[in-house]
Amino acid sequence: MKKIILFLPLFLGGIFFSQVKTDSLQFSKISDQILSEGKAYEDLRELTKGIGHRLSGSAAYTKAEKWAFDKLKAAGADKVWYEDVMVPVWERGKESLQIKIGNGKYKSIKMLSLGNSEGTKGKNIEAEIIFVKNKNEFDALSEEQVKGKIVFFNYAFNQKFITTGQAYGDAGIYRRSSASWAGKKGAKAVIIRSLSSAFDDVPHTGMMRYEADDTTKIPAVAIGPKSADELENILKNQKVVAKLNSNCTMKGEQMAHSVIGELTGKNDQSVIVVGGHLDSWDVGEGAQDDGAGIVQSIEVLRTFKKLNIQNNHTIRVVCFANEENGVKGGEKYAENIKLKNEKHIFAIESDGGGFTPRGFGLVMSPEKRKEIQSWSSLFVPYGVTNFNAQYAGTDIEPMEDQGVALAELIPDSQRYFDIHHTEEDTFEKVNRRELLLGATVVTQLIYLIDKNW
Amino acid sequence: MKKIILFLPLFLGGIFFSQVKTDSLQFSKISDQILSEGKAYEDLRELTKGIGHRLSGSAAYTKAEKWAFDKLKAAGADKVWYEDVMVPVWERGKESLQIKIGNGKYKSIKMLSLGNSEGTKGKNIEAEIIFVKNKNEFDALSEEQVKGKIVFFNYAFNQKFITTGQAYGDAGIYRRSSASWAGKKGAKAVIIRSLSSAFDDVPHTGMMRYEADDTTKIPAVAIGPKSADELENILKNQKVVAKLNSNCTMKGEQMAHSVIGELTGKNDQSVIVVGGHLDSWDVGEGAQDDGAGIVQSIEVLRTFKKLNIQNNHTIRVVCFANEENGVKGGEKYAENIKLKNEKHIFAIESDGGGFTPRGFGLVMSPEKRKEIQSWSSLFVPYGVTNFNAQYAGTDIEPMEDQGVALAELIPDSQRYFDIHHTEEDTFEKVNRRELLLGATVVTQLIYLIDKNW
Repeated sequence: MKKIILFLPLFLGGIFFSQVKTDSLQFSKISDQILSEGKAYEDLRELTKGIGHRLSGSAAYTKAEKWAFDKLKAAGADKVWYEDVMVPVWERGKESLQIKIGNGKYKSIKMLSLGNSEGTKGKNIEAEIIFVKNKNEFDALSEEQVKGKIVFFNYAFNQKFITTGQAYGDAGIYRRSSASWAGKKGAKAVIIRSLSSAFDDVPHTGMMRYEADDTTKIPAVAIGPKSADELENILKNQKVVAKLNSNCTMKGEQMAHSVIGELTGKNDQSVIVVGGHLDSWDVGEGAQDDGAGIVQSIEVLRTFKKLNIQNNHTIRVVCFANEENGVKGGEKYAENIKLKNEKHIFAIESDGGGFTPRGFGLVMSPEKRKEIQSWSSLFVPYGVTNFNAQYAGTDIEPMEDQGVALAELIPDSQRYFDIHHTEEDTFEKVNRRELLLGATVVTQLIYLIDKNW
Repeated sequence: MKKIILFLPLFLGGIFFSQVKTDSLQFSKISDQILSEGKAYEDLRELTKGIGHRLSGSAAYTKAEKWAFDKLKAAGADKVWYEDVMVPVWERGKESLQIKIGNGKYKSIKMLSLGNSEGTKGKNIEAEIIFVKNKNEFDALSEEQVKGKIVFFNYAFNQKFITTGQAYGDAGIYRRSSASWAGKKGAKAVIIRSLSSAFDDVPHTGMMRYEADDTTKIPAVAIGPKSADELENILKNQKVVAKLNSNCTMKGEQMAHSVIGELTGKNDQSVIVVGGHLDSWDVGEGAQDDGAGIVQSIEVLRTFKKLNIQNNHTIRVVCFANEENGVKGGEKYAENIKLKNEKHIFAIESDGGGFTPRGFGLVMSPEKRKEIQSWSSLFVPYGVTNFNAQYAGTDIEPMEDQGVALAELIPDSQRYFDIHHTEEDTFEKVNRRELLLGATVVTQLIYLIDKNW
C-alpha cells in the first residue's frame, strides 16, 4: 500500500509540474517574441508622431480610428470593425491667464482649461484671487467672501503615498468638483493646482464636471505646481488680480468609433477583451495615456497570431473611444454585448502607462481571483508580483454588472503623473523595453485565461 | 491546560506582532520623511549640473570630493574625512572615426574610445574593416585575415533577458577583451557595438583592459547600435575603410580620495556601510551612474539624523573613488579597515541607478540571508519583493573576504543601459520619486540591520 500511496501524489504532482513547465515555456516564447520582435514601440511612434493628440470629436481622432483599423488588420485579426459611439465634443480654443500683483503689471502664467469646462467666451474676466488650501477652508468662507472672486484651490499631491495613483485619487475631487463648489457661492472662476506628482511648471488638464444644479457654469483652469506655490506665497502678503480669457466650450455630440479587432475562438465564441483607449487629451501626444495601452493590446493579438497559439476563446482587442471626457466608448461596448448577448469571460485594460509592469488589479469573484493568484509564481521572473489590487480600467468597468471578470495591468506608477494630461506626454517619455514588457505580461495572462477558463 | 496552551502562542504572537508593528511604523516614518522632505534630488542637481562628469584624476573629481565632504557635514555626520586613494589617470582628448564605403568619401561616425584604451597618438590609422558577429566568428579567422585590419565586433545586447544587467554581463567581454583578442592577431584597432539596450546612435564608453602579454595595445572604440547595424549591413556587400584618430592614453597615477562620513554608533563601534561611487565616466553627467547612489547614501545618513533614530552601530556613508576605471577606492577601503581592525557587519551599495527599487542582492551567509528575507513582508508596501539575487556592489566586494555581509540595492533595470556611460546620462533622466524611493528602502533596511544585528 505504501507504494501506491506514494505513487499517487507523485503521479498527480507530475501532471501539475508538467503543466507548470508547459506554461513556463509558453511564457518564455511570448516574452522572447515580444522583447525581440515586438512592434508596439514602432506602432506607438506612428500613432504619436504621425497623428499626435486625438481628443474625441477631433479630426485627429478620426485619423487614429483608421490607423487602428489598419494596424489590427496587419497584426492578423480575423475581423476588424468600427463600433459607433456618440461622443461629446469639447474644444479648447485660445486661452490665457494673467496675474497682477498689487499695482504691478499683468504677467502670463502657463495654464490649461480643464476638459469639459466652459470658458469666458473670449471676453476677459478680471477679478481678485482668493486662496484656499482645501475644501474645508473653502467651506469656511461665506458667500459674500467668494462672490465675484476667482477662487484658487492649491491642494497638492500627497507625496507620501507610495503608489501615485492614490495621490491622484486623493486630489481628484478638486479637478472634478471645485468649479461647482465655487460657482454655487458666486465665484467668477476657479484656478486649481494641477494634479501632478512633479514640482515643475507644467499644467495638467483632465475632466471636470458641473453638477446638475449648477446655475452658472464657471470656467475652471489648472496651473503648474511651481506657479501654484509661487501664487500661494504671493497671496499671503499681497492682493492679486487675475485676467482670464478662454474660448473653450462644449459643442454638442458627434459620431465617433471604437475600433475592434479579434482572433475568433477556435473552440467557442465567448470573448476575452484586451484594450486601452484610443482618444487622448488635446495636448502632448497621448503617448503614455493611452497610446501605450493601444499598442500593447494590438501586440497581444499579433503575438497570438505570430506564435500560432490556438486560442480557445475569441480574443478581442478593443480600442475604446472617448475615455477621457465621457467614457462613451466603454458604455456603448457594454450595452452592445448585452444587446447581442455576447458572452464575455474576461476583460483587461492597460491605461496606467507603458511603464515596467508590476502586477494586475483584479475585479472578479473571490474564486476567480484566487485562481489567477495561484498562477502568480509564473510571473515572478517577469517582475510581476502584485495581484492584490482590486480595480479595473474605466472603459471595461461598464461590463462589471454582466459578471465579466475584469482586470487592469498595473505598471510602475512613479513617473505617470509627472506628465499625465500634459504637453509632456510624448513618445520620448516611453521606454521601449518597459512598453514591451507590459505587452508581454498581458499576453501571458490572456494565454492562461484562454487556456484555463 | 487548553487555556494555557492557547495563551502561550498568543502571548508570543503578541510580542512578534508588536515588533512588526513597531518596524512597520518606523518604515512609514522613514518613507514619509524622505518622500516629502528628502534632499537627494536637489543634491543630485547640484552634483550633475554644478560639477558634471568627474572621471578619476580630473579637476571635476576634486570638486566632487569637496562637494561630498560639505554635503555629509550638512546632513549631520558626526565625522567626515577623506581617504587617500591612488587612482589611474586616463585622458580621452580629441578623437574621431570616419568610414569610407567603396570609393566614396569619408563620413564621420559617432564614437567613444573605451576607457583605459590607448589611442592613435593623434595620427590617422587607416585600414579596412572586417566584421564578426561574435568571438566564435573571430576565432575562426586566421592571423593573415586579421593582420593590418580594423576588427568590428557587432555583438548585440540580448533583448530577451528580462533583467538588462544579464544582457550587460553577457555582452561585457567584447568591451573588456576584444582589443586583446584582435591585437594578438595583428589587428590595428577594434570597433565594438556599444553595450546598449537601446537602438539609437549613442556610443557608450566603459572600461576595457589589455592582457598582460599584449605586446601591442591597439585602440578600442565603441559606436552606437544604429551605426553598428548600418555598418554590418554595408559590410555584407561592400568594402569599408576606416580612418581612426584618437589621443586617449593612460597618464600614470594620481592621489585622489574616497569621501567618508559617519554617524557614530551609540552602543558599539562596529560599522554598517552604505555607499556609491563618486567618480563617473568623462561623458554626460554621471547622474544615474552613480550620482544617484551617492545622493541616496547621503540621504540615509540625513534621515537617521533628522528622525533622531538612535543607531546602535556606526552608520558610515562611503563615496568611493575610482569605481569606473580601477576600483581603487573600494580596494583601499577594504585594505584600511583590515589594517585598522575595524569590525564591519554589513555594507550596501547603490550603483544600479536611481530607478524604482525592486529588491536587494544579498551576498552573505545563508543564515543572514534568511534573516533579511524574513523581513521581506515589511518591504512589500514599498514595492520591494526581490530578495533572491546574490550579488553586491563592485566597491564593497573587496570586503567580502573579511566576512562582511554585503548587499546591493536592485532598482528596476529597464532604462539603465540605454544611457549608461554615455552623454545621455544626465540629471533629466532621473525621476525624483524613483530616486527618493530607492533612498527610502535602503534606509529601512539599514534601520533593521542596525536594530537586529
